[in-house]
Amino acid sequence: MKYANWMKNVGEGFIGEMLRAAQNPEMISFAGGLPALELFPTHELQDAFQKVFEEQGSSALQYSQTAGYPKLREWLASQHQRNERLARIQEVIITTGSQQGLSLLAQTFLDPGDTVFVETPTYLGAIQAFEGFRANFQMIPCDVEGIIPSELERALQHTTPKFLYLIPNYQNPTGKVMGLERRKELLKVAQKYDLLLVEDNPYGELRYEGESIPHLVELGEHVVYLGTFSKVLAPGLRVGYVLADEDIIMHLEQTKEGVDLHSNNLTQRAVYQYLKQDLLPDHIQKLRQVYDVRRKAMVEAIHTYLGEQIEMVVPSGGLFLWGKLSGVQDSFDYVEDMIKQNVLYVPGALFYADGRVSNEMRLNYSCSTPEVIEEGIKRLAKGLRK
Amino acid sequence: MKYANWMKNVGEGFIGEMLRAAQNPEMISFAGGLPALELFPTHELQDAFQKVFEEQGSSALQYSQTAGYPKLREWLASQHQRNERLARIQEVIITTGSQQGLSLLAQTFLDPGDTVFVETPTYLGAIQAFEGFRANFQMIPCDVEGIIPSELERALQHTTPKFLYLIPNYQNPTGKVMGLERRKELLKVAQKYDLLLVEDNPYGELRYEGESIPHLVELGEHVVYLGTFSKVLAPGLRVGYVLADEDIIMHLEQTKEGVDLHSNNLTQRAVYQYLKQDLLPDHIQKLRQVYDVRRKAMVEAIHTYLGEQIEMVVPSGGLFLWGKLSGVQDSFDYVEDMIKQNVLYVPGALFYADGRVSNEMRLNYSCSTPEVIEEGIKRLAKGLRK
Repeated sequence: MKYANWMKNVGEGFIGEMLRAAQNPEMISFAGGLPALELFPTHELQDAFQKVFEEQGSSALQYSQTAGYPKLREWLASQHQRNERLARIQEVIITTGSQQGLSLLAQTFLDPGDTVFVETPTYLGAIQAFEGFRANFQMIPCDVEGIIPSELERALQHTTPKFLYLIPNYQNPTGKVMGLERRKELLKVAQKYDLLLVEDNPYGELRYEGESIPHLVELGEHVVYLGTFSKVLAPGLRVGYVLADEDIIMHLEQTKEGVDLHSNNLTQRAVYQYLKQDLLPDHIQKLRQVYDVRRKAMVEAIHTYLGEQIEMVVPSGGLFLWGKLSGVQDSFDYVEDMIKQNVLYVPGALFYADGRVSNEMRLNYSCSTPEVIEEGIKRLAKGLRK
Repeated sequence: MKYANWMKNVGEGFIGEMLRAAQNPEMISFAGGLPALELFPTHELQDAFQKVFEEQGSSALQYSQTAGYPKLREWLASQHQRNERLARIQEVIITTGSQQGLSLLAQTFLDPGDTVFVETPTYLGAIQAFEGFRANFQMIPCDVEGIIPSELERALQHTTPKFLYLIPNYQNPTGKVMGLERRKELLKVAQKYDLLLVEDNPYGELRYEGESIPHLVELGEHVVYLGTFSKVLAPGLRVGYVLADEDIIMHLEQTKEGVDLHSNNLTQRAVYQYLKQDLLPDHIQKLRQVYDVRRKAMVEAIHTYLGEQIEMVVPSGGLFLWGKLSGVQDSFDYVEDMIKQNVLYVPGALFYADGRVSNEMRLNYSCSTPEVIEEGIKRLAKGLRK
């Protein structure tokens, strides 16, 4: 019995390990990307499930279409502009969370050894999804707005990747935002080289400062957009989607048919039931207010307890704060000490596709109250003194 | 922009196409593998979801463990014997339907070009799942009990496959059952050649005649067992599982982390809530009674309206009847005529991994009443006369 070769390259399932460790009630976890459980619109979702059972009954429990529940797809299409028209239902496929969108894209596009361009650093779940299809990674240099177009162009002169994966809004892990002009420059380079862009946008609605910026998929061609309800509604429902050209969606559908036939039918209907009551905008306002307070609490606690020990990027949205440790070479070295202190973070190395040594760490502030955040940062400071 | 090479080998998404065509209300579909919607325990499931919302609230909507909801995994382990002990929770992973189990196994075990042994014919969804990971297929000759051990041994002398995929109970598409002695012979060959067996058992509980036979996973080593609630509860919930050695489960978990992080948390808890009330055994009894009536109605209608035109295998369980058309070379030739007659079946060729011409067809009897079955078989007879 022999596993596939790529399995050797997979790490130890760090996301899963963190999810498990985070279940220790004593632990303060800044490691996950967990939205705040106490803010979930649980009653409204309960009502939505009830209503689907009452009005649609057994049909919500039957097999359904691979591309997803049509009314949910229609609703999602109606939320997106594409070249001065609304998106069409044929341009949307429902996925089992955004993570499945990443995996389906990899399976649909990658032959073994194909190259994928990624940001430096990038979302570790994307690295995992693409590794599962034997991707080669090339990390494109980034500045404060993300991918540097001239660096992208230089890379494209030597390598033809299957796509460039990026998170323009409140990037994971760095929290950076790509401005409008940068987006346009990037699209120009992409068009010149016929480069497919994969735009992942789980955090775009969680904006605490500044104005909303149009998505790449709304500004140009050849963009695959990934959306999700995990951060604005509830991640346990596993409802995400991909918006892209119809031909790409048809191919993703073909892939998904072999992968899981379709996503949970009942849940898709319940999410649509929730959405059609137009409850989401107010809910997002509430999330913004609460997360903003937590963001500020973390920034303040870091100033107070870590001071010069950490150089941080203060995010204007999203779930994460990215910090660089002073006088430390490898942030991995402190993981064990921190677990003893009952505090978790994600070491920066995990976000680099080449696994380089990093003195950075990603801290999540969305799922802890200001008091807990303060206590957690105190523990971090204590752990760092060891 | 270029898709992965394997995409060319994928058919036109026949399962998805059938699911779509089956939504025409005039259509009588014998094509799907749909369980009967009117038999779903919808009220009990509604209560289960309500209870989870009331008792567990938001925690049922949060991210959760990749391997699945621990109480559901425990319950499933308790249902299976392994070498005279009960299975352990570490030997179970929850999947988004059994289809995901197939896809995860392929991703975890297959390098491009690796060979998979399959029955002749086999489940077309398994062909799709394995094609997505560039499998080579070798079809092992079968008799009335499925895989012929001597033929398997002969094949193993020339080729080392990653695994043999088979459906011992009420095989899809043929309805065949592998007897106890045959299972033991098969395990002996597998052990001799260190061959991994993938035992898919979606229909085992739907038994209308004969006695229950122990699963391969209960009889020997190196067996990966796939189970699902799609046929005994409701497929739209997408809850399946894999039972295997702990090391295999850990690898599947690693793969699943990149693929969709975890399956729907709320739904797993609701299914467990349903199961722990011990409602399933009575529900399965009801399914058996109703499906048995439908099975007999189809057999009788075929005798009445098709007579010598079709040679059928009368199944003793499951959802399907397998028929061979007399005086016909390719059952694909009639698909268009049948759609005009508003009746659907699946042409036999789709179940052969080599895509050979076939004069066979698979007919599903579980999701139509006896009256509809009679009408559908009349339409089939009419279509065949064209």
